[in-house]
Amino acid sequence: MSSFLRVATIEKARATLEKRWRLRPREAEVSLGEAAGRVLAEDVISRIDVPPFDRAAFDGYAVRAADTFGAGEESPIELTRVGSVRAGEWPKFKIRRGQCAEIDTGAPVPRGANAVVMLEYSTARAKVVRVLRAVAPGENIAERGSEIKRGTKVLKAGKMITPQTLGTIAAIGRKRVKVYSPPKVAVVSSGVELVDAGSSLGRGKIYDVNGPAICQAVELCGGEASYLGIARDEPRSLATLLKRGLATCDVVVLSGGSSAGAGDIAPSVVDGLGNPGVLVHGLALRPGKPTFVAVVGGKPIFGLPGYPVSALMVFDQLVVPYLRRLSGLPPAERAKVRVKLASKILSARGRRELVPLKLVQKRQKIYAEPLLKGSGAITALSLADGYMDVPLEREIVEKDEAVEVILFGGGGIG
Amino acid sequence: MSSFLRVATIEKARATLEKRWRLRPREAEVSLGEAAGRVLAEDVISRIDVPPFDRAAFDGYAVRAADTFGAGEESPIELTRVGSVRAGEWPKFKIRRGQCAEIDTGAPVPRGANAVVMLEYSTARAKVVRVLRAVAPGENIAERGSEIKRGTKVLKAGKMITPQTLGTIAAIGRKRVKVYSPPKVAVVSSGVELVDAGSSLGRGKIYDVNGPAICQAVELCGGEASYLGIARDEPRSLATLLKRGLATCDVVVLSGGSSAGAGDIAPSVVDGLGNPGVLVHGLALRPGKPTFVAVVGGKPIFGLPGYPVSALMVFDQLVVPYLRRLSGLPPAERAKVRVKLASKILSARGRRELVPLKLVQKRQKIYAEPLLKGSGAITALSLADGYMDVPLEREIVEKDEAVEVILFGGGGIG
Repeated sequence: MSSFLRVATIEKARATLEKRWRLRPREAEVSLGEAAGRVLAEDVISRIDVPPFDRAAFDGYAVRAADTFGAGEESPIELTRVGSVRAGEWPKFKIRRGQCAEIDTGAPVPRGANAVVMLEYSTARAKVVRVLRAVAPGENIAERGSEIKRGTKVLKAGKMITPQTLGTIAAIGRKRVKVYSPPKVAVVSSGVELVDAGSSLGRGKIYDVNGPAICQAVELCGGEASYLGIARDEPRSLATLLKRGLATCDVVVLSGGSSAGAGDIAPSVVDGLGNPGVLVHGLALRPGKPTFVAVVGGKPIFGLPGYPVSALMVFDQLVVPYLRRLSGLPPAERAKVRVKLASKILSARGRRELVPLKLVQKRQKIYAEPLLKGSGAITALSLADGYMDVPLEREIVEKDEAVEVILFGGGGIG
Repeated sequence: MSSFLRVATIEKARATLEKRWRLRPREAEVSLGEAAGRVLAEDVISRIDVPPFDRAAFDGYAVRAADTFGAGEESPIELTRVGSVRAGEWPKFKIRRGQCAEIDTGAPVPRGANAVVMLEYSTARAKVVRVLRAVAPGENIAERGSEIKRGTKVLKAGKMITPQTLGTIAAIGRKRVKVYSPPKVAVVSSGVELVDAGSSLGRGKIYDVNGPAICQAVELCGGEASYLGIARDEPRSLATLLKRGLATCDVVVLSGGSSAGAGDIAPSVVDGLGNPGVLVHGLALRPGKPTFVAVVGGKPIFGLPGYPVSALMVFDQLVVPYLRRLSGLPPAERAKVRVKLASKILSARGRRELVPLKLVQKRQKIYAEPLLKGSGAITALSLADGYMDVPLEREIVEKDEAVEVILFGGGGIG
């Protein structure tokens, strides 16, 4: 069966993939430090009351509220100071009628007391404290469990861990928490003309761009990239690296070399690795012709175009949503801007097209300038601020038309 | 000299600090993988031409353009195929008049040839190739250096390294690149009532919230946090941890405990560690009263309030800009939303105030609900989506007034 019969829209490619791939985010219990920036894989339930005791909200005097009734600037009420409570201490004494205790913010309110008179509404001389303002029961006290009651669900699974949520987890005394593990992603570049940065550049060779770029793009959507290196567009070398990727990672991302053979060789090598093999070969999307989607041994292999801007755009559309799901992250809220086109776009007839764009400023206004295919792989890569998704029914998008630019970044690639 | 004489606005605090602290971002040469997400500390200049040779932009035939003049569907021109060039190969032969060579996308154009006829505009039979369309000199060739000329500055210092820029660095063969190192930030919590999450909670104690929360906040603005633990609000314990922080890190961030002594002890301990010591004690900002700013041995110590929401807001206003500068990052583009207030805010007279807010939805509209001080440290922490900066001249901000909410996240504290 020729794999060229398996061309699909991106939506169809996704549906086909999801029928054959049981996407299972992995979970792990990690320390608070490791949890930062990840996504909760459990509902977090507090096993303690917070605060765990009645706590003074201000510096002052712990009192029996009823003892202060009627107190005022002109009619102070005198109480006898029977002790003091510092934060972190546990008071052993009890406040009886007519008594009070000095208390620090955060210190436990002694038994018998049910309110705190703020320092500024009191005067003291030896053991005699004059209360200048009445307090109601509970006043200036953070009651046990008033913030979080024992047994309360404080955070739900799926919540991203920010400094705030991390603080909340710490507040209930949890040292470890269950999060979604970063999916391990094997990144392979393919192309007989490619060499790794830092190596010497033989005649006819070019440096690989996609390996490092896709690795970072993987990390930006919550994955853990593992760069396996360059496969020559040759069955044995490709099979070795893909097998290694399948053995050690959850997902394999291959970006095809630009040599003519690559587009044909990769899918047939993949088909030889196991079932079901290649599910889709060719996206009804420009760029996307050499793209393929496969599943081998329950793990997906994404084959991206070799041209760097194309590889990153297809990665953004096709791979990012899965890596985010595997990381427990919600779908990317893509940062988009609506700006006018600086020059017209002629799009392929009857084919959806992703056109890389550069944002430019002209007379105080921002325009989107299409990066022409002729403008070169690397230049376009470093210039592109994002891309436009031109639907298949559009053949021309006119200059000065307002268009939506999907920005690289913002949970996408960059 | 009482340090309480050193109360300052946040702007004054910054100016005072910058007079005594020579802020020097550190640089390091790192591998491409480590460079991801950091900021370039050098202008990147290409030592090679990209592409490094004249390269076919499509699969087809390398020809002498002049040989194809006049060719058309109805008037094909026949050339003799004298060889083929695959990507990654270096052609040893030369194309003479009347000759051509099969060529792959990305393969080097052989000497003599100066254009490529696309495969779809040709037919071939044995060694005879029929050209169906004329090509101009240079057509379908990416010329040597057409993307990047040797000696060109491809990226400027200060540029954030995204997948695109990383790809560009790889394209010119650089394996290592100079970036700004993450500043090392010592994080210390202080409070005799605090214990670390995971420990057993003695009577009168509460779990420390600020340690983990501030560590993540540090990482989110490019720093590398080192959590040194909890200092009891006691001079020796505090001095030990602060000294360790000064010895091992570039910046020390202390968040004070809520015990009454903490506010007084920390600045005097810091003054005892070296010169110039505490520069500012108390910000003319609410919350911010217990905040202090110090420099010891050329390194800054920031003392934040103990109340977690206050600590994070003051961190955001006071510390984030410095950590970003030390990381080489531009000032945070703070994500802000303009929404109506759900209920009025009464602000301190004559004092700038940061009020934590929660975004709520009411009848399809988003409102900002102020989180009252009484709502508790932890609850407010997990609920706050951001905060509002109420200028000192405002005493009341009315319900339904449109206000600007500075969102947590977006390069700030997350």
